[in-house]
Amino acid sequence: MTRDIQPVVLCGGAGTRLWPASRGTRAKQFLALTGERSLFEMTIMRTAGRFPPPIILCGTAHVELVREQADASGARLVVEPEPRNTAAAIALAVASVDADTLLLVMPSDHVIADVGAFHAAIEKAARLARQDWIVTFGISPDRPDTGFGYIASGAALGEDGFQVDRFVEKPPLVEAEQMLAAGGFDWNAGIFLFRAGRMRAAMHRHCPAIVQAAELAIAAGVRSGDRTDADPVSFARAPSESIDYAVMEKDDRVAVVPVSMGWSDLGSWQAVHALTPCDAAANGCDGNAFLHDSHGCLVRSGGKRVSLIGMDDVAVIVDGDDILVIPLARSQDVRAAAQAHK
Amino acid sequence: MTRDIQPVVLCGGAGTRLWPASRGTRAKQFLALTGERSLFEMTIMRTAGRFPPPIILCGTAHVELVREQADASGARLVVEPEPRNTAAAIALAVASVDADTLLLVMPSDHVIADVGAFHAAIEKAARLARQDWIVTFGISPDRPDTGFGYIASGAALGEDGFQVDRFVEKPPLVEAEQMLAAGGFDWNAGIFLFRAGRMRAAMHRHCPAIVQAAELAIAAGVRSGDRTDADPVSFARAPSESIDYAVMEKDDRVAVVPVSMGWSDLGSWQAVHALTPCDAAANGCDGNAFLHDSHGCLVRSGGKRVSLIGMDDVAVIVDGDDILVIPLARSQDVRAAAQAHK
Repeated sequence: MTRDIQPVVLCGGAGTRLWPASRGTRAKQFLALTGERSLFEMTIMRTAGRFPPPIILCGTAHVELVREQADASGARLVVEPEPRNTAAAIALAVASVDADTLLLVMPSDHVIADVGAFHAAIEKAARLARQDWIVTFGISPDRPDTGFGYIASGAALGEDGFQVDRFVEKPPLVEAEQMLAAGGFDWNAGIFLFRAGRMRAAMHRHCPAIVQAAELAIAAGVRSGDRTDADPVSFARAPSESIDYAVMEKDDRVAVVPVSMGWSDLGSWQAVHALTPCDAAANGCDGNAFLHDSHGCLVRSGGKRVSLIGMDDVAVIVDGDDILVIPLARSQDVRAAAQAHK
Repeated sequence: MTRDIQPVVLCGGAGTRLWPASRGTRAKQFLALTGERSLFEMTIMRTAGRFPPPIILCGTAHVELVREQADASGARLVVEPEPRNTAAAIALAVASVDADTLLLVMPSDHVIADVGAFHAAIEKAARLARQDWIVTFGISPDRPDTGFGYIASGAALGEDGFQVDRFVEKPPLVEAEQMLAAGGFDWNAGIFLFRAGRMRAAMHRHCPAIVQAAELAIAAGVRSGDRTDADPVSFARAPSESIDYAVMEKDDRVAVVPVSMGWSDLGSWQAVHALTPCDAAANGCDGNAFLHDSHGCLVRSGGKRVSLIGMDDVAVIVDGDDILVIPLARSQDVRAAAQAHK
């Protein structure tokens, strides 16, 4: 077991991209989208045994689900009184450990098919983190996706990775195509590894209000067994910024470790379909579905009986009293319904 | 009021073409598909006031719904112990009235937009029926529909109609196109007008087993107020044949009265869509529907909330635990699901 690497699972998100399955307290990470286990459970299992039990950052609304799904993991909970984005969440984790602890920060709603490749990348990243690099994991793009931020690699750092030249925010299609053609760009998967003291120093320099609020929120927080509730008044003072914006894009010692590990953020029903076991007609169905002369469809029947006749490449998602029908290629537009039904 | 014309409403069908809305005891005729009232109610209203209250032929399973929807009409009920197709049903009606009564036989699940035109056609048909023609109503085809039988007109019968040359069963597309191009062909709408004694004689000649079984079933039937339950044992002996096959195609004194009256048999979800009030994007919705960038769709939400994003020309029909998604152009294939879910 690698004792000095402390997994941190960010579990505060809600997300509307998989509406209607994902909404309110039933956030995407708690759904079993690709098999029996939820994305959150699979995130926990990915480091179990090899590293110490994780620190889980979650909101008050999700504590019960986290307990239910992570009970046996020996995890510590740090509860965010309100969502203040990833920088503040990571600052809470930083304030909860010793300066020399290496924090492996992971979103809780991604899929990683090749865990061995992930572990190998963690080893590389840890070597760089011990040299005070803040390390991000880069996913080799296989398509000009406009839904991700990109990382431009600079000089090689031995065999382990590259210095980050710059971060590119979610690009328009033309720019995404250019980056794919040029090479040297990776998707920013939002997985990080760094020495806690190194991040603390970076935050004090780049986003002092966030780290100060987080440190006060932990100091004044309420401890109860394995659970710490951050102090609401202190935490509310933390500006709501992503870690990319607050630190990564501003720091000059950020490295990227490229890794090919069957990663997906399952950021759309199309992405879910791509990872769902399908029949010979490329239909992936969960529940009671009758498909006749239909191809390439995703059905989640939600306890109802869904009949598709002559339909191609659509998602039909049933959840409670909501039924969504959308072409898989239009998956990103699901927000239109999610927002209309807020 | 035209006293000698007795409306007869055939209400025994079930039908799977509008599955899942239509099934089991909730047959198509009892659904409000185009407005507030059911097709059955609208059929009753079409002759109310102008003609005597109707005789309603229905199955035991539908008596309650018939009572509910036709209670104020003063209708007489003739209950079929089991469905034996239209010839036997009409034979029951024939056996229930005097020989000189003109029977106006109507399916209960059609739409007629122009009731005035229908009434005018009834006048013409009645004149022919009094001369012992068995009269059928012909609908001018506006497309080469393969879902209807066709009637070929022969010699004109004055101003009122034409002698029927022959009946054409549901044709393949090529033949339907040829008939449309040639002219002189009408759709067989299944609406008939004849003197009861004339039909009785025709049946004794063309299908004696049916009329004998029906006459026994009425003679041995159970009368209770305005309801007659045909005798099950007698009625079970009636061969199950359509009136077209049992009589119309065999008789040599059959006339057709062509009529243009905004008729539809609502024989598919596409036909329902064509008669549903639609918004500017040609979407016709019943219930709680959210449509975003979608066109030409039919939604029946069945108490759920249906969200369509980027969908064109599909039907989404929710009924209880069933959800059907099908391109409107494929509406005829709904039977695949209806049969699979029997």
